[in-house]
Amino acid sequence: MSFKPRATLPETAFTLPAKYYVDASVLDRELELFYRRMWVGVGRLEEIPVRGAYVTRAIAGDSVIVLRADSDDVRAFYNVCRHRGTQLCGEAAGRLNGAIQCPYHAWTYDYQGRLIGAPHMDGSPGFRKEDFPLNQVRAGVWDGHVFVCLSTSGPSLAEHLDGLPAKFAPWRMGDLTVAHRIVYDVRANWKLIVQNYNECLHCPTLHPSLNKLSHYLSGENEPLRPTYMGGRMDLSDGIATMSMDGTCPRDPLPGLAAADRRRVYYYSVFPNFLFAPHPDYVLVHTLWPDAPDRTRIVCEWLVHPDERAKASFDLSDAIAFWDMTNRQDWHVCEQAQAGISSRGYRPGPYSNREDLLYAFDRFVVETLGDC
Amino acid sequence: MSFKPRATLPETAFTLPAKYYVDASVLDRELELFYRRMWVGVGRLEEIPVRGAYVTRAIAGDSVIVLRADSDDVRAFYNVCRHRGTQLCGEAAGRLNGAIQCPYHAWTYDYQGRLIGAPHMDGSPGFRKEDFPLNQVRAGVWDGHVFVCLSTSGPSLAEHLDGLPAKFAPWRMGDLTVAHRIVYDVRANWKLIVQNYNECLHCPTLHPSLNKLSHYLSGENEPLRPTYMGGRMDLSDGIATMSMDGTCPRDPLPGLAAADRRRVYYYSVFPNFLFAPHPDYVLVHTLWPDAPDRTRIVCEWLVHPDERAKASFDLSDAIAFWDMTNRQDWHVCEQAQAGISSRGYRPGPYSNREDLLYAFDRFVVETLGDC
Amino acid sequence: MSFKPRATLPETAFTLPAKYYVDASVLDRELELFYRRMWVGVGRLEEIPVRGAYVTRAIAGDSVIVLRADSDDVRAFYNVCRHRGTQLCGEAAGRLNGAIQCPYHAWTYDYQGRLIGAPHMDGSPGFRKEDFPLNQVRAGVWDGHVFVCLSTSGPSLAEHLDGLPAKFAPWRMGDLTVAHRIVYDVRANWKLIVQNYNECLHCPTLHPSLNKLSHYLSGENEPLRPTYMGGRMDLSDGIATMSMDGTCPRDPLPGLAAADRRRVYYYSVFPNFLFAPHPDYVLVHTLWPDAPDRTRIVCEWLVHPDERAKASFDLSDAIAFWDMTNRQDWHVCEQAQAGISSRGYRPGPYSNREDLLYAFDRFVVETLGDC
Repeated sequence: MSFKPRATLPETAFTLPAKYYVDASVLDRELELFYRRMWVGVGRLEEIPVRGAYVTRAIAGDSVIVLRADSDDVRAFYNVCRHRGTQLCGEAAGRLNGAIQCPYHAWTYDYQGRLIGAPHMDGSPGFRKEDFPLNQVRAGVWDGHVFVCLSTSGPSLAEHLDGLPAKFAPWRMGDLTVAHRIVYDVRANWKLIVQNYNECLHCPTLHPSLNKLSHYLSGENEPLRPTYMGGRMDLSDGIATMSMDGTCPRDPLPGLAAADRRRVYYYSVFPNFLFAPHPDYVLVHTLWPDAPDRTRIVCEWLVHPDERAKASFDLSDAIAFWDMTNRQDWHVCEQAQAGISSRGYRPGPYSNREDLLYAFDRFVVETLGDC
Repeated sequence: MSFKPRATLPETAFTLPAKYYVDASVLDRELELFYRRMWVGVGRLEEIPVRGAYVTRAIAGDSVIVLRADSDDVRAFYNVCRHRGTQLCGEAAGRLNGAIQCPYHAWTYDYQGRLIGAPHMDGSPGFRKEDFPLNQVRAGVWDGHVFVCLSTSGPSLAEHLDGLPAKFAPWRMGDLTVAHRIVYDVRANWKLIVQNYNECLHCPTLHPSLNKLSHYLSGENEPLRPTYMGGRMDLSDGIATMSMDGTCPRDPLPGLAAADRRRVYYYSVFPNFLFAPHPDYVLVHTLWPDAPDRTRIVCEWLVHPDERAKASFDLSDAIAFWDMTNRQDWHVCEQAQAGISSRGYRPGPYSNREDLLYAFDRFVVETLGDC
Repeated sequence: MSFKPRATLPETAFTLPAKYYVDASVLDRELELFYRRMWVGVGRLEEIPVRGAYVTRAIAGDSVIVLRADSDDVRAFYNVCRHRGTQLCGEAAGRLNGAIQCPYHAWTYDYQGRLIGAPHMDGSPGFRKEDFPLNQVRAGVWDGHVFVCLSTSGPSLAEHLDGLPAKFAPWRMGDLTVAHRIVYDVRANWKLIVQNYNECLHCPTLHPSLNKLSHYLSGENEPLRPTYMGGRMDLSDGIATMSMDGTCPRDPLPGLAAADRRRVYYYSVFPNFLFAPHPDYVLVHTLWPDAPDRTRIVCEWLVHPDERAKASFDLSDAIAFWDMTNRQDWHVCEQAQAGISSRGYRPGPYSNREDLLYAFDRFVVETLGDC
């Protein structure tokens, strides 16, 4: 267990005013500037395993089709027909049969989004199919994680991820597979979830079990980057991974250095992708704001397929541990939301161990500007 | 099966901007200009068969009492006491016993809406019963269909209906009776329902069964009138009516010309009354907007009482057919609502076979003005 | 049964415009000027019987901790930690163990609200515990009734209650105990509940049973006071209390004068505390607005502990009577809300027997000012 002194925060390092957590206008602006202009994590490539497979995702309220257009080509389109605006794919997932056809009047698009069929439009003066392709947005993949960016301009996915692909290459996340998924509906602002994720000062009070596995004063944070933040914690002596009893019935991920077999990393890629590489699995949370005080959280446990293929494979200890810890966190985030929504709330002082939160708040305020 | 070429729409014939389907302020304006100033269909005269019988209807959010004040006198009043504003009739339907009495302090009105009892108001200086009649609105009946207009000025019901009573007199709708009623709760804007009703370009894709009974290219539309629009379709050879198998176990309506026994008419009287005379029955839909994205739809099947009185009477084929078709339509209208609500929506081009929709859109835009 | 002529109301004594009952902005202003600046009844002292016992109450949307800080010291605090705003007490009631500790990062406060523990804040420049006490509001007790005032300035509880403690001292309400409680969720504006409570002109129509026990023309009203209003009604000959059959299987409260054993008082302390001393019990309603058209009502029956201790104790007649009468009232208040919300509503004339309502309306309008 190592202890590193943190930089001292200024006297003015206080939490944000309540409006950042309760005002619908602030959330609208966040959806615009974070969820529509940045790259958001939308799931795993294995969910669209073959050509024609698709999932739909509601990003900032708008349904998007994420389509395996070809073996090495993932594309994303607004789920909207160019004829009369009908939603093209009504299901959460499915497999297309060579084309995207609107269920209303049979306008038909190929996998590149080009309009290839439009019944009875022949007699319309000036009508040209090439003027009505699907409204395409950007899609990209990093080690099996699929990202979508609704903005057609701005940084590439590689630029957004910056140093992360190199740093976490040893975990070979592209090889991993989702062994379990839980979806939570949390009555708290999405930023409270991010903040909760990025400090462990609350661990002794809220997570006594977790605190035994990795002490809250262990580890080290990286300074805030423009698009992500994170740090690591060290497993306590005799602890093999984050699980109910600290033992690990699974092999560590292949290729990990010895040091990384003793650590857990917690990183938040803005705005919605939180991932935590463990010695033997990777935990991923994606955050989906539904309202200023409501966030849907998808939590996935990723494991190596070789491990999963074993007859003895059992992830229940890690699932139980994080489900318990998740629920403790969501509950206290809901209490924070309730308190911050009160007229009795006043911004309060951060401690030096909440340095990432203060940095995140600065990032939020600077990105949003006046609001 | 006849095919008539349609007029060619201009290059600018595109669907409306999203705001017309999603903005609460647009719906408010529509409720004001369509539902409060025009005549709305509220049901059948047979629902208030005797003196004192009444139904209540929520028109644009306001409860209205529709009362059989006398055998040939239908009246409508806001369902509000003039004393302290209490709703007078709490039930959806009922029969009064000679007067309308408020359940709170017993203010009492006659069937003409005159205040005839007001306990303990004697001592109030200047109080005169004649100053506090019920707030009356206009009511009228066309061939058994009851209409109400919340505005006390503007065109009469006869003016609103224009050529319809003469055109559809042969169906003698005043003689018919409601044999079945289904109420649907649809997550779509009321105008999407009207538009869906007034084109059959979607029939081959969405309604393969319907398309076998009457081909989508058959029939003819009337040009848009100031207060209604509609057209007819022709039954295919060997098809007797719109039913699951196209056969008809019922006699045609008495008095119908041979040509009309081979046709189905689909007419929309703005804003909320859609009726479809068939050879042997009449289908009526009334539309009740609850929100920009939500409409309650009452669907009724009207038949001749002589037919209904037969021991062999069976309407299940026609009910099953239209319930199936309705649900297909409501579902695709909900998909249209979802897509139009997306930031990915762009107005798209109408085909010439969607001529009534384009005309209806022009009417809506011109009526609403800037909004 | 006595009959006293009322003062004659002016010709202009009409009910309020609809906005006072339907506009969210009016309710916001009422919450600000009535519920946040005045003393609101929050329950009985017996609910926090020992040091450390607390209840939480949502006043105008904000959770407040009402704490028995010591045997003769009741305190109230906003339920918000001064660190990151977390709600401190998540339960509706409980008992603390010597301090108030935040569940998130363990900031700890004593029963006077002073911050006595703040982990890891030592290194924060300029941080002083004394700068971060809990946000305290005023609390007070009158004869066992606990009141809270969110405003730290303004009249004291004694000033707010004015002549009531002296007038109702004979009922010794401090000795009484809650024998029954029912919570109602009513779809009506809180002021409609107050108005319904303060006139009996509706009794012959709505409450025929009540009207037999105490005639609606009996009794007398006090003129409106700045912070309360009320009056009394007389029990009819042969009637012992308000119960299903008018008999009373309980002794009258000790110390009551003979005249008060023949009367029921109905008083409304603004904004939310309605109490009705009966010969043998006291009925208390507290009103909690949730929306312009929705109010939660807590109704409690208070009895003397000596009576309650008897083997023969039975309050079911009084509970059944008032539960029935409550439901009649809530239903007609909901009908009033529905009617007033209609565009067909027009303010109507008050009778002289509704004098307190007119006075209350004047008080409301004058307090709210332009809105």
